[in-house]
Amino acid sequence: MVQYNIALIGFGGVNRAFAELVAERNNRWRTELGFQLNIVAVTDLNLGSVVSANGIDARMLIETRFERGGFAKLSGGSAEADNEQVIRQAPADIVAEATFTNPYDGEPAVSHCRWALESGRHVITTNKGPVALAAADLKALARRNHVSFEYEGAVMSGTPVIRMAKTMLAGSGLNGFEGILNGTSNFVLGRMESGLGFSEAIGEAQALGYAEADPTADVEGHDVRLKVVILANELLGATLTPGDVSCRGISSLTVGDIESAAKERCRWKLIGSAIRGEDGRIEASVAPRRLALDHPLAGVGGAINAVSINTDLLGAVTVTGPGAGRVETAYALLSDIVAIHRAVHVNKEAAE
Amino acid sequence: MVQYNIALIGFGGVNRAFAELVAERNNRWRTELGFQLNIVAVTDLNLGSVVSANGIDARMLIETRFERGGFAKLSGGSAEADNEQVIRQAPADIVAEATFTNPYDGEPAVSHCRWALESGRHVITTNKGPVALAAADLKALARRNHVSFEYEGAVMSGTPVIRMAKTMLAGSGLNGFEGILNGTSNFVLGRMESGLGFSEAIGEAQALGYAEADPTADVEGHDVRLKVVILANELLGATLTPGDVSCRGISSLTVGDIESAAKERCRWKLIGSAIRGEDGRIEASVAPRRLALDHPLAGVGGAINAVSINTDLLGAVTVTGPGAGRVETAYALLSDIVAIHRAVHVNKEAAE
Repeated sequence: MVQYNIALIGFGGVNRAFAELVAERNNRWRTELGFQLNIVAVTDLNLGSVVSANGIDARMLIETRFERGGFAKLSGGSAEADNEQVIRQAPADIVAEATFTNPYDGEPAVSHCRWALESGRHVITTNKGPVALAAADLKALARRNHVSFEYEGAVMSGTPVIRMAKTMLAGSGLNGFEGILNGTSNFVLGRMESGLGFSEAIGEAQALGYAEADPTADVEGHDVRLKVVILANELLGATLTPGDVSCRGISSLTVGDIESAAKERCRWKLIGSAIRGEDGRIEASVAPRRLALDHPLAGVGGAINAVSINTDLLGAVTVTGPGAGRVETAYALLSDIVAIHRAVHVNKEAAE
Repeated sequence: MVQYNIALIGFGGVNRAFAELVAERNNRWRTELGFQLNIVAVTDLNLGSVVSANGIDARMLIETRFERGGFAKLSGGSAEADNEQVIRQAPADIVAEATFTNPYDGEPAVSHCRWALESGRHVITTNKGPVALAAADLKALARRNHVSFEYEGAVMSGTPVIRMAKTMLAGSGLNGFEGILNGTSNFVLGRMESGLGFSEAIGEAQALGYAEADPTADVEGHDVRLKVVILANELLGATLTPGDVSCRGISSLTVGDIESAAKERCRWKLIGSAIRGEDGRIEASVAPRRLALDHPLAGVGGAINAVSINTDLLGAVTVTGPGAGRVETAYALLSDIVAIHRAVHVNKEAAE
């Protein structure tokens, strides 16, 4: 039986949900997927770090209520999160990076990825920062070290988009995409259609846990902009940085705008898009757009996300699914491991 | 440069469109995909057969207006389509089966696939017959002969569904699906919503080339039933035959049904679905269903198809795209070759 030893960097919502999945589903995955997972290290800014070559019981990890520095109480544990040492030295095959997204320089997640790849570990991540801001460098580093860098969860959580488009639509002539890529702003627009003002709708999203205390990144389009950079670079071969993407959010939309759209059988949506022009240049933007109700993205409601990928040979192919959520994002990490397994292990079988 | 030699079995709409793609895009694919294609044999009931180890010019094939038996005029040609001999003896790596769908026993396409696999050729097909009625046998035969049997185009033409769900959603806990899988009936329902009677709507679909002279297979759900068998067996591990799928079409729907649904903000759609029950049994059906307008499939209009795949970890993931079309279906053949290339060639590289 193939076993992958995993180091979890960051033990917030996503990696915690991933540990829950390991606790609940490892047996099933063994049968269904042909491998099992073994958590050998965890680091977290608050909790400290723990390393165990034999594996750390996933159920204990998720059921224990650790205090600040609480990993120190575990065998092989410490109150400090020495990420670099753990990433470079823990006996992990795969490092799962799920710390916070830094939209400016991607740190410290970019360094986490770099240390792991340099040390010959595969990297899987749900963190938009390293993928939007340093993907080219990290991919080159992965190639040089004969390991994989996988990041399906950076866009639309576990809904397959990046890998789907690159592998399943290869040769179809990808030339653009448009998507609803932020559940919070989509939820707010939906509530405004029911008559709420912008601030009231935001308040409701915050009460439901959809929006953060500072909702700027969601409603001003900054979160979508990072995702547009990722999709444009991955799907269209662009080399965009966030500064290349014009960005306008939904905060300037009034109840009057929403109502007048509805009268004309239209609906406002925050759309992230990119298109390859005649000259080959990629033009990318984030902006509210008034869609006719029969537009493929007009019916995407609530916290659901969707991307419509435009191709020469198939026209538009649209993928709709969850855009966020702890378990949904943790599944993206599993899908990255499935991809690594396919690349590594299937190849090994072929060589035998 | 990797080159795959291809034999085209059947030279109707799909394989002809495939030859057009080869003529137009081979250079581009060489760069983008890392392989080029070379058509070394074509057989067709009407036109005869032609075999050329050096390759047959794709542009000549699509631009010549052949008469009945016309392949006889080509070097290496014959007025007879001796499919078995061509499939077994032409120097092809891959056999592209695109003859007509026989919904009863899948023949002669099943034999075409069998001859090819037995002779160590990969098989790619867009033909629902062999996949719905003989997939288990053909897959076993492919495994024994160390070749691939690929059939993305059997459902929703080139829109990635079968391979997408099996590879991109692995481990997510697939437990059912529901889909709009027949463009003709979906078009007819849309026209009935505009006030046309059933027969008028059928007439219009026939005039536009969407419906055949005998529209029974489309409107009575038989076409969808084959696709439900394929998806249930592939995605849910079922072992269904068409007789296991209850089947009702749209011919009994009246204008009154359509209107009363619209009054209640609902819409009739012909839905093919399957679900895994508590006891593990797969329950599958084809039937018209009244969907609320905010149902993910309610907005799928015209000849577009969609499948909503239900998973434990992600909830519903929906793929929407073309469900038919010559070029769209021909692209499915290319996507099958991309999958074969990835399996064969990437493995070879890893072994070196």
